Amino acid sequence: MEKQIKNEAITSREKDFAQWYTDVCKKAELMDYSSIKGFIIYRPYGYAIWEQIQKYLDQKFKDTGHENVYMPMVIPQSLFNKEKEHVEGFAPETLIATLGGKEKLDDPLIIRPTSEVLFCEHYAKIINSYRDLPKKYNQWCSVVRWEKTTRPFLRGAEFLWQEGHTVHETEQEARFETLQMLKIYQTLGEELLAIPFLTGRKTEKEKFAGAKETYAVEALMHDGKSLQSGTSHYFGTGFAEAFGIQFQNRQNQLQPVHQTSWGVSTRLIGSLIMVHGDDNGLILPPRVAPIQVMIVPIMPQKPGVLSQAKTLFESLKQAGIRVMLDESDNSPGWKYAEAEMKGIPLRIELGPRDLEQQQVVMVKRNDKAKKTIKFSDLVNESKLTLEQIQRELLQHAKQHLATNIREANSLEELTAILNQFGGYVKVSVDDTEEVEKIVKEKAQATARVIPFDQVGLRSKCAITGKPAKRIVYFARAY
Amino acid sequence: MEKQIKNEAITSREKDFAQWYTDVCKKAELMDYSSIKGFIIYRPYGYAIWEQIQKYLDQKFKDTGHENVYMPMVIPQSLFNKEKEHVEGFAPETLIATLGGKEKLDDPLIIRPTSEVLFCEHYAKIINSYRDLPKKYNQWCSVVRWEKTTRPFLRGAEFLWQEGHTVHETEQEARFETLQMLKIYQTLGEELLAIPFLTGRKTEKEKFAGAKETYAVEALMHDGKSLQSGTSHYFGTGFAEAFGIQFQNRQNQLQPVHQTSWGVSTRLIGSLIMVHGDDNGLILPPRVAPIQVMIVPIMPQKPGVLSQAKTLFESLKQAGIRVMLDESDNSPGWKYAEAEMKGIPLRIELGPRDLEQQQVVMVKRNDKAKKTIKFSDLVNESKLTLEQIQRELLQHAKQHLATNIREANSLEELTAILNQFGGYVKVSVDDTEEVEKIVKEKAQATARVIPFDQVGLRSKCAITGKPAKRIVYFARAY
Repeated sequence: MEKQIKNEAITSREKDFAQWYTDVCKKAELMDYSSIKGFIIYRPYGYAIWEQIQKYLDQKFKDTGHENVYMPMVIPQSLFNKEKEHVEGFAPETLIATLGGKEKLDDPLIIRPTSEVLFCEHYAKIINSYRDLPKKYNQWCSVVRWEKTTRPFLRGAEFLWQEGHTVHETEQEARFETLQMLKIYQTLGEELLAIPFLTGRKTEKEKFAGAKETYAVEALMHDGKSLQSGTSHYFGTGFAEAFGIQFQNRQNQLQPVHQTSWGVSTRLIGSLIMVHGDDNGLILPPRVAPIQVMIVPIMPQKPGVLSQAKTLFESLKQAGIRVMLDESDNSPGWKYAEAEMKGIPLRIELGPRDLEQQQVVMVKRNDKAKKTIKFSDLVNESKLTLEQIQRELLQHAKQHLATNIREANSLEELTAILNQFGGYVKVSVDDTEEVEKIVKEKAQATARVIPFDQVGLRSKCAITGKPAKRIVYFARAY
Repeated sequence: MEKQIKNEAITSREKDFAQWYTDVCKKAELMDYSSIKGFIIYRPYGYAIWEQIQKYLDQKFKDTGHENVYMPMVIPQSLFNKEKEHVEGFAPETLIATLGGKEKLDDPLIIRPTSEVLFCEHYAKIINSYRDLPKKYNQWCSVVRWEKTTRPFLRGAEFLWQEGHTVHETEQEARFETLQMLKIYQTLGEELLAIPFLTGRKTEKEKFAGAKETYAVEALMHDGKSLQSGTSHYFGTGFAEAFGIQFQNRQNQLQPVHQTSWGVSTRLIGSLIMVHGDDNGLILPPRVAPIQVMIVPIMPQKPGVLSQAKTLFESLKQAGIRVMLDESDNSPGWKYAEAEMKGIPLRIELGPRDLEQQQVVMVKRNDKAKKTIKFSDLVNESKLTLEQIQRELLQHAKQHLATNIREANSLEELTAILNQFGGYVKVSVDDTEEVEKIVKEKAQATARVIPFDQVGLRSKCAITGKPAKRIVYFARAY
């Protein structure tokens, strides 16, 4: 009964996917709105997911020789204006401080939308010789982009992210770095988030303002739309020249550094929701789940139930499992619904009859499968089942991705596929902005990536009929 | 020779303590200045110290039932103006954004100087019943205060900190929380930073804008001045009433919550520098040191030296010690000076003759003591020596504190003590703002804390001659 009441409040995915998404964000207590448009509150459960992602990535960054730093949260407007393309890309969506201590500022301060120019200014100061290279810095912070349309985790006026900024002696080294970080994001997807990312290079039109090349990881949402979930950029020497980041090379000559930047954000939480969730709420892969197991005692007032539940709780905790015991005075049905809404991978039910039999009922969140487990097997069985769920979610998402990559040989075919299925459409194109403009206008889709694997390139562009140069994956995207 | 060159650049502490401090900040590569006044760059080494502090505190916070959240970095001016005392305390030093996406904002946005009002607004929304209490939230972020005079780590336009904000059903519970968090800060000092804090309550004049009571941890710097290093506030129901944070209590009546907040910042890095440092640079307590052991190979070109150094490096790393091997082509003297500047607790020297004898030379940063250690004892001896250094630094700081608490029975005595020794001066006072005004004017000192231990209270106020009510510790402070 209570369960129904709890679930009735969620719109189903098929009925209205956008509304379902917002419902999950709110009802799983991932976030709340603040009184400032586009600035959300990251509630404990949502922030805890971000902490799991941070922990995983921070270790990977350190293992590959990166160091964390912290740069100012504001950028003087005069400094921001130094790199032309970059300015054009970001200027329209900035928040600007003009008053400090009640006085008007001579040089207004832009709240950082990204920190390239701050890193550049610092690097120009501290780098003199090839001996000072490489410098591989990362920063965890929040950034502000004054967006007109905002959605929790997907597009915010403020969001949390990490931004890596590195400078190198050679182009080869910088290119290696760019692809290494893309690979780390891909591994984050496969190992932690159970999300198989589609990877590749961005087209000229879609690349980052100021970058020579942008690479991305894209994820396929349940509704067939793509979500760009991380990017890695090779800058060449453009910023270095604009900001004077020069070094004495091994031939005693001054030359500019080769530069990269790369980042992922709390948008990944949006990916998690829309890749794995169902009509009962969130489904979290065990490795990223802040709570992996929820124990629900049934009739806890009956002798022995609560104390046994606590014993089981302790043994799971000792084994390194992130476990919680729901001791609230809500009904079991309400507790089940809440654990489901929050996407807790495993639920363990313990009532008086289970106690008699020295067993619990274990329920998997992803497929609702139930089994009874003896107390003595609980720790071991929980570990195995959590790993099983992790695998199943990845497998499920991989299959969804694989069945939703289709090829089109004409604009009509492309549009028909997108209208019927969504997903990615593989198209051989002559790779000009012209093609992307047509596809955007006629099919409301954008070029997501130019895949590394170009096998299957046809001779003619499916859109213009001119000679084809590239395979591009198109999709409708967030 | 090179060593001298490196050290010549630092001013000695006795000559000019302020300059020595700035030299250490810069030359130990803890920070750098950005082009925006008061906004510093936290360089990798400085940020790594902050990460050690974060790791320690975050665990303590979680162990005591706190959850992390993230609130917007901006506060609408209209919201900020809701709590009168709070506004008056912070309004003069705020940075204000007035332009978003090139348009003028109707309600300007204050870059958060602290987030009380944001937490209050959120709590008012999510709290309904005593069942929703307590809520114990913490946030790691940066805040902005538009200060006129800024110094690295001590007073910045932007600094990194954590701010805890909790709401409770009863006054008793909120008061317990306030003191529990003060205790955690004190333990942070004793266990991690090797800093014995002086603790107590702030006077009415010195308390936080909007707080009913403020408690603080104060540290005594080498130059005899005090540095407030953390605060914990009991708010009573003042904010709750201003923001409507009400709940249905167990008697089914609406009542406001009892509230606390508490925080420490990167100012702790300033404490570390000025408590432990010497004329060769920083001295870091091993538990907070990002690098605990530096291995310096001598004549690394000689056969076996570098490979043995690497073997020792691996064995220390395996043992969980944060170790680095300096493989740069600088001279040993230069390397020694650099390791000293950065305050690395232990230095291990390995040259060809040591290799023959299967031993290294181990040098303690804090007292320069040297000993030779057999390879086979290195891991064990390093662990023991690191713990020894940690104890010695705490002991040294404790002694400095103990010998620098003196009592004064008149304004003249107070001034004379401060002029001659600095440190804390214990004074029985009638505890009015009048006394603090006189002491500030005549002795340039402020009330640091009212100690918990009031033993030794005299009958007459040392300053006014009126009946004495309290013992207060006065000091000159940063």
